[in-house]
This record gives sequence, structure tokens and C-alpha cells, in this order.
Amino acid sequence: MKRSTSLAESIDGQRFWDDMLKQAEIGALIPRGLGRLALDDNDNNARCWLVEQGRALGCEAFYDAMGNVFLRREGRDPNLPPLLIGSHLDSQPNAGIYDGTLGVLAGLAVLRALQESDFPHQQPVEVVSWTNEEGARFAPGASGSSWFAGQRETARILGTVDDDGVRFADALSTCQTLLDADKVSYRPYPFTPSAFLELHIEQGPVLESLGVPVCTVKGIQGVNWYSITVNGQANHAGTTPEHARRDAFTGAHGLITALREAVAEHGESVRFTIGKFTLEPNATNTIPQQATFSIDLRHPSTAVLTSLDNAFQRLATETWSGCSVELTVSSRVSPVEFDKKLVETLDASVKKYAPDAPKLVSGAFHDAIHLAHQCPTAMLFMPCRSGISHHPDEYIEREDAEIAVRALADAVGTLLTR
Amino acid sequence: MKRSTSLAESIDGQRFWDDMLKQAEIGALIPRGLGRLALDDNDNNARCWLVEQGRALGCEAFYDAMGNVFLRREGRDPNLPPLLIGSHLDSQPNAGIYDGTLGVLAGLAVLRALQESDFPHQQPVEVVSWTNEEGARFAPGASGSSWFAGQRETARILGTVDDDGVRFADALSTCQTLLDADKVSYRPYPFTPSAFLELHIEQGPVLESLGVPVCTVKGIQGVNWYSITVNGQANHAGTTPEHARRDAFTGAHGLITALREAVAEHGESVRFTIGKFTLEPNATNTIPQQATFSIDLRHPSTAVLTSLDNAFQRLATETWSGCSVELTVSSRVSPVEFDKKLVETLDASVKKYAPDAPKLVSGAFHDAIHLAHQCPTAMLFMPCRSGISHHPDEYIEREDAEIAVRALADAVGTLLTR
Repeated sequence: MKRSTSLAESIDGQRFWDDMLKQAEIGALIPRGLGRLALDDNDNNARCWLVEQGRALGCEAFYDAMGNVFLRREGRDPNLPPLLIGSHLDSQPNAGIYDGTLGVLAGLAVLRALQESDFPHQQPVEVVSWTNEEGARFAPGASGSSWFAGQRETARILGTVDDDGVRFADALSTCQTLLDADKVSYRPYPFTPSAFLELHIEQGPVLESLGVPVCTVKGIQGVNWYSITVNGQANHAGTTPEHARRDAFTGAHGLITALREAVAEHGESVRFTIGKFTLEPNATNTIPQQATFSIDLRHPSTAVLTSLDNAFQRLATETWSGCSVELTVSSRVSPVEFDKKLVETLDASVKKYAPDAPKLVSGAFHDAIHLAHQCPTAMLFMPCRSGISHHPDEYIEREDAEIAVRALADAVGTLLTR
Repeated sequence: MKRSTSLAESIDGQRFWDDMLKQAEIGALIPRGLGRLALDDNDNNARCWLVEQGRALGCEAFYDAMGNVFLRREGRDPNLPPLLIGSHLDSQPNAGIYDGTLGVLAGLAVLRALQESDFPHQQPVEVVSWTNEEGARFAPGASGSSWFAGQRETARILGTVDDDGVRFADALSTCQTLLDADKVSYRPYPFTPSAFLELHIEQGPVLESLGVPVCTVKGIQGVNWYSITVNGQANHAGTTPEHARRDAFTGAHGLITALREAVAEHGESVRFTIGKFTLEPNATNTIPQQATFSIDLRHPSTAVLTSLDNAFQRLATETWSGCSVELTVSSRVSPVEFDKKLVETLDASVKKYAPDAPKLVSGAFHDAIHLAHQCPTAMLFMPCRSGISHHPDEYIEREDAEIAVRALADAVGTLLTR
């Protein structure tokens, strides 16, 4: 316990913050913000910059078949599975500078603390930057981490094409040529870490509203995406009496009221969002013949998602204001509950710095959702102002960030001395 | 009464129907339908064709400063104000062949019956085709009739521009050149008819559902158009808890529920349509920051429209799920109640052919809405299949049409012998 405290105290807060500002230059937008799309020149250069930082600490750098980059600090027993820490360096096209990078550079800060405090550890410690978490250039995202955890087929990822017609495989090949030139070792296959830890900004308003600098994340909400079409009949808004209407908007309105009632039965913990809504023909004096809308439904519990899924499917079999309904599930991601023991270890460290910290369930996806299938996994969140992310306005307090990195280091110390 | 019956009996049903099919060739679409936009070559040719039909009956043809065309059958006293019958020959771009033209050719059939039965009348009888009722090429529509009735400024109409940049004034000039070449007399100014009668297809489903071939129209509903914007805040659908949301869709949903409740207090007679609805940014996993929608509100009573207008304005001052609301009235047209005596005269004729005919209030606009400001005005409706209009599928039964024209002729007989 003494040693782990000392690892946290060995974090060089100034150096960590300097690194955060330094990486933000690679893909900086004018006047501000970051544009570092997966496998573009900036993203590749950020990899090389990370490799350089690791090597300066005596770490060996590796990359794998998906372009994931690893910095390895050897343990006394190189045969033990490594403890893995990290996140991603790629960004949305008009992003802030913290999303993802924070977790990679927090890992780097831990490597530096291990080095500078000469902290003894049996198992190796690795820091990773996963390829294409954002999915902004090549959709879907989390390519590197999902592949690493055996959650997605290699061919499917490699065949993805960006808006300019560039194949993921070709962009990856350019990246690998650069890493080869930089003499980064190729270590093609995934492995099984002893655990994976990821620090990330919350991208939501909860921690800021609680005034808490860091918290443990105990899982990630499951998400169902629905696409719903309500089919009515176009008609003249002036000449068609109420009883002769099959108004797709009115049908959709009634259906949505019923969907909301079903959601309300499960309390405030359900996140239910209608983000897209369109009408056909979308004219002021024509009764709509078709309404189409999306639902983004999230909850930490599979049971609740299943119950709501059943309710939604049942409501879609009914007729609404004379309109029929088609419901399709366009995406379904199960909730993930992080490893309980690892969550408790992390939380013990968190509580040293933030006694009132809640344990949150992440509303957004992260690389950790996939790693949880590969090894014990858990996350830390730190607040970001007003919950704003994927925008140049994304902002974190340096003091909060230092505390979050120390909490991470504290937990790493615990795990390494266990 | 005897004479009026004989005028109805003098209607040549076959010739009327032949004329309907003949006019449908001018602007016929392939494989079917009609495209005769206001003041295009087809619309101008239809004018000349109408002039030719009138002249064959010994009528003089006139046109005025708005391109409205008149066929005049002289009365024994040319100084008496004419009885005016008509509608419009222009169509929507992909239309059926009955909307508007029916009312003009019904007038022509009456002129023919007057001629062939040598029906004696003191006052002149005129048939009119109003310019640009549809408003499909030059918006707003009803240019000719609104100008004739002093409801719209000449300069405002002439300055309208179509999608190709052609000014109404220039299109009108081309039309007038053609009419001049055809030696149609120029009679620039409006006048005050003794009455205006317009037969039109219902463009709604009521008469068909009642199995009634013709009915009297006692007025035209008033219409208010609203544009409503609900302003919230964009945020991540996964990370933003319920209490931190200002979801513009949720706000709009609640507001619309309240608007519907206000409407429901006035019973089934209100026509309330939300035909346009859009979200910003319209992404599945982003809480909408803005919802914008239209309302088309119709009712025959000014008092009801005013009451609902007040209710809508009041609801728009409230906050809905944390969102503010902006409501603007984009258009307001007062209800029109047709001349009671004229309605009764028309209805007496209608009841001879359709004892169970209701008196309807028109849900759509017609040239008659403007003429009602100029002289006693009333309309007849006949059924069209499934209420479909503004579409090549627009369809009427020949038998119904003949009955409707006879009812019109019967009423004309009554008015001319009074």
C-alpha cells in the first residue's frame, strides 16, 4: 500500500500536462480544436510521437496487424501477462484535444512514474493507443480494440471505405510503412493482458455537477437503435375530415406517447432519444403519408432493454390513427458490466482523492467495451465542462486531470504489488 | 320555375363531356394527366380554345388586365350586370383533368343550353376562366380572381417570378399578344357581376362517401398557417441524463400534445394538420437542439379560429422540457360565408337532383373565396373518387358531372327569370 501511494506521488503533473498540449499540436485546427482522423497523416504522426516518448523512457514500441501501438515497460518476469493501460489518439473531424488522448497520455505518465521512481514490478506494463476508436473516417469505430478482443472480423474492418473511397486496408498500409521506417517492432497478434484500464473524459454533465474530479466506471450501457416508419396516406389538409384521415404524423405522435409511457415505467435510468424525424411529403397543407424516426435506447441492464424491446415491438404491431408501423432494429449492443474486483480496486484508489465519487455507468461507448471480453477491464472518468465533447469547446481542468492520473497510478501500484 | 327546369333539360350532356375530353388534350401528359401551368403555352392555347367555343355560340370574348378570359352572351338589357359563372383552366404540374376546368366548361354548357333553348334573359350571362388559380408556377395562386375582387395589388401580382426567373408580367404579355392576335377584345377593368357561381370537384371524400352527385357549398374555411420552432440544446444521447436534457423533440412532442388538446375542445369540425417537421442536427445519437414544424389550422368560424389562435399563442409562451418556443403566423385567411340567399337558390336546384345533399363548407381555397368580396357568390361541389386531386388519378363519374351541370343550369334559370 505504501508503494502504490508513492507511485501516485511520482506522477509528474507538469510533464503530463505539457504532453497533453504537445500532442494537441499534431492535427491542430485554426483557431482551435483538433482534427486527427483515424490513419490520416496527423494520426500516424501522433503514433510516431508516442513511440518517441516511450523510447525516451526505455520502453520498446510495437504495433500489431490493426495498427494499434503499444509501449512496453518490461517486468522482472517477461512471461507474465502485461497490465494494459490506454485509449485512443484519433479524433472526430472538429474535436477537442482530450477525448481519447487523455487516457493514452495518462498511461504514459504512469510509465514515467514507474521509471522515475524505479518502481519494482514482476509483470510488464504496456500502454496502448487503439486504432480508429471514433469511427468518424471509417465506420463503425473501435476497429483496433474490437479486433484485438476478437469481437469483429479482420476482413470486415479492412474492407471499410472512407468518403474519399480510400480503403481501411490501404490507409493502414501507409501507417505501417511509417512505423516500419521508425523501426517499431511488428507483433501481429492480440494477447491476453492481466487487466485493461482506461481513463476518459465523461462526455456528460454528472461529475461536473457533483464537483468530483474522478470516478470509477462500473460498466457501459447497452444500446438499441431502432428505425420506425409510420405509413399513412397523403391527403389535402383542408378537405379531408378527421374520420377520413390516415395522418402519419398523428400516428407517430400517438405511438411515441405510448413508447414514452413504456419507458417511464422503468424510471429515470433509461435514456430514450428520438434524434431523427422526417415526414413525407413534408408540405404544410398536405397530410403526411409517411413519418420516419429513430430511437436511441440505452440502459445498463440487459433485462430492462429486453423488456423495453418487447414493449416497442408489441406497440409496433398496433395501428396508430389508421397507420401501420414498421419497426427495425438497426443496431443492438449489449450492456457491459466491468470486472467487479477490478472496479473495487480502482474505486479504492479513487476514493483517496474523491471520497464522494459515485460509480458511474458510461452512456457512451469506449474501447473498454470490447476489452471487457478479453480481460478484466474497468474505467475511470473525469469531468469535462458542461459535458461538451466532439467539439473544440471540449475542456477539462488541469487540477482534475492531475488527480485523475494520480488515482490511475495509485490503482496501477496496487495491481502491480498484489 | 317551368323555364328553369327546361334550361337544365337543355344541357347537352354528351357535348359537355366531349368538351371535357377535348380540353384535356391541351397539355396532356404521357401516359396520362394534365400539366397546364398558368400562362404557359398550353394554358394560353386553352384560352384560345375556350374563345373559339364561345364564339361558335355567338358570344363575344374579352380579356382583362390580368388575362382573365370572359365569354359574354348578351342579355336583352346590356346595361344590367352580368351573371358570372366559371372557374380556372390552369392546373398543377402533374394534375388531373377536372380541377377548375369542370367549372369553366359547366359554364360553357349553360351558355350552349341558353343558346339552343333560346332561353329569354334580361341580363347578360358571362363565363370566366380566372388566371393562375393554382399558384403552382406563380405563388400565391388565385391571381386573376383576387385582383378582380380588389383583394390583391396589381404590382404585387405582376412582380411575381417563376422558378425559371420569368416574371408574371412578361408571361402575361405573351398571353395577351396571343389573345390580341385572336382579336379577343380588351376590357381592362373589373366589374360587379349580379352573382358568381362556381362548380368544382370536392377534392375531399365526403360526397363520395354519402353517394351524393352534387351539393351546395355555403362557405370556405378560414386557414391559419403557423411555423413553430422549439429551441433546446444538442447533447450526447448516451451520456446526458434525463434531468440535464433540453431535448427539442421532447419539447415539441409535449407542446403538440397540448395543441391537440386545445383543438379537441372544439370538436371534429377543426382541421389541424402538422405537415412539416424537421429536427436539427437530425442524428440518431444526438439530442436534437431544434425542432421546427408547421400547423395548418382550418375552421369555418372566425370565432373558433381566434380562440385557437389565442390558445396556440399562449402555449408558445410556456417552456416545454426546458425548451423555448417561437411561434410565427405565416398566413391568415379569414373564413368566407357565401351569400345566404344565393346559397338557398342553388340548394333548391341541387335538391331536385340530390334530395339528401348536405351543404358543405369548402376545406380548400377557390376563386370564389375572392369573388365573395365582390358580389353574391356560391359554389357547387361534385364528388371525385377517393377525394384525390392534384394528381393524374383524379377521377369523376360522367353521370355525376352531368347531374351537377344540370343543377347549375337549373339555378341559372331561376336567377335569370327572377
